[in-house]
Amino acid sequence: MVRLNEIREGELAVPLPARQDAGLYFIGTIRTPWTDRLECPRQGRLDGPTCRIDVASPWDRGLEGIEAFEQLEVLYWLNESRRDLMKQSPRNDGEARGVFSLRTPVRPNPIGTSIVRLVKVDGPVLHVKGLDCLDGTPLIDLKPDRTLFNPLAPAQAGDFQVGDEA
Amino acid sequence: MVRLNEIREGELAVPLPARQDAGLYFIGTIRTPWTDRLECPRQGRLDGPTCRIDVASPWDRGLEGIEAFEQLEVLYWLNESRRDLMKQSPRNDGEARGVFSLRTPVRPNPIGTSIVRLVKVDGPVLHVKGLDCLDGTPLIDLKPDRTLFNPLAPAQAGDFQVGDEA
Repeated sequence: MVRLNEIREGELAVPLPARQDAGLYFIGTIRTPWTDRLECPRQGRLDGPTCRIDVASPWDRGLEGIEAFEQLEVLYWLNESRRDLMKQSPRNDGEARGVFSLRTPVRPNPIGTSIVRLVKVDGPVLHVKGLDCLDGTPLIDLKPDRTLFNPLAPAQAGDFQVGDEA
Repeated sequence: MVRLNEIREGELAVPLPARQDAGLYFIGTIRTPWTDRLECPRQGRLDGPTCRIDVASPWDRGLEGIEAFEQLEVLYWLNESRRDLMKQSPRNDGEARGVFSLRTPVRPNPIGTSIVRLVKVDGPVLHVKGLDCLDGTPLIDLKPDRTLFNPLAPAQAGDFQVGDEA
């Protein structure tokens, strides 16, 4: 069962700070077939249903050239998630693990990341496969998949730096 | 040359909204050998220098179990980046491309993502390889690498849903 807002046996909640440290702009909206948290996939699949990413103005001016990449990294804001559970019990069986050893949507900064396959670009709308989020999820970033991207800018000293330890 | 704050030939800046839509907590600090943007690698390397991720209290309570993963996904806040450049010229040669077709730190929501190799966990401190950010960069999330993680929670209907199109 997907979490709604309960705290389960073995879980640990912490008080959240009063102040936040940085702010996000929602730059678009993700449209998927899933309108209920009880149906959403746990993980997207690249052969899943085609979903839409609607990029809002003026951010759509940043899409030029994106069609060159077969796969993209998508960042989105899991706006229905609580943020205070440092230990969680995904199976609801009394066994709990730290949030950072899970890919749960419930996290201090509820940012989801997916690798998607780009099917089509239609103006400010991207058609993609591989998402796992609810319909209406706010978009926060799009990047070329790291494995397909070579920096255009010239390399710097750090690019050649190798560690001397294991 | 790395960007400091200039706007280059061919680039497009847009006015930023007055309001932000969501807030982030900084949950720790990343310590790297790079204190100058002119030295930072363009992309991290898994055989690079060992860097430190200091997870702050109370967020360190969420680290339990993280040592099981050889690779982690790290999200951080590129706090020195301007956010308004929808078209950018990485080579500063008059040719510009959309921000979402680049992995530049200059983006509407300046979130960097890296895949790192976990070398050691020492209480609230992780030792990792593969980072590319400046010393002092604020941490916003840690997740197991998606390729190493299987959801613990039971699958839902969406996990079995396959698309009928290309």
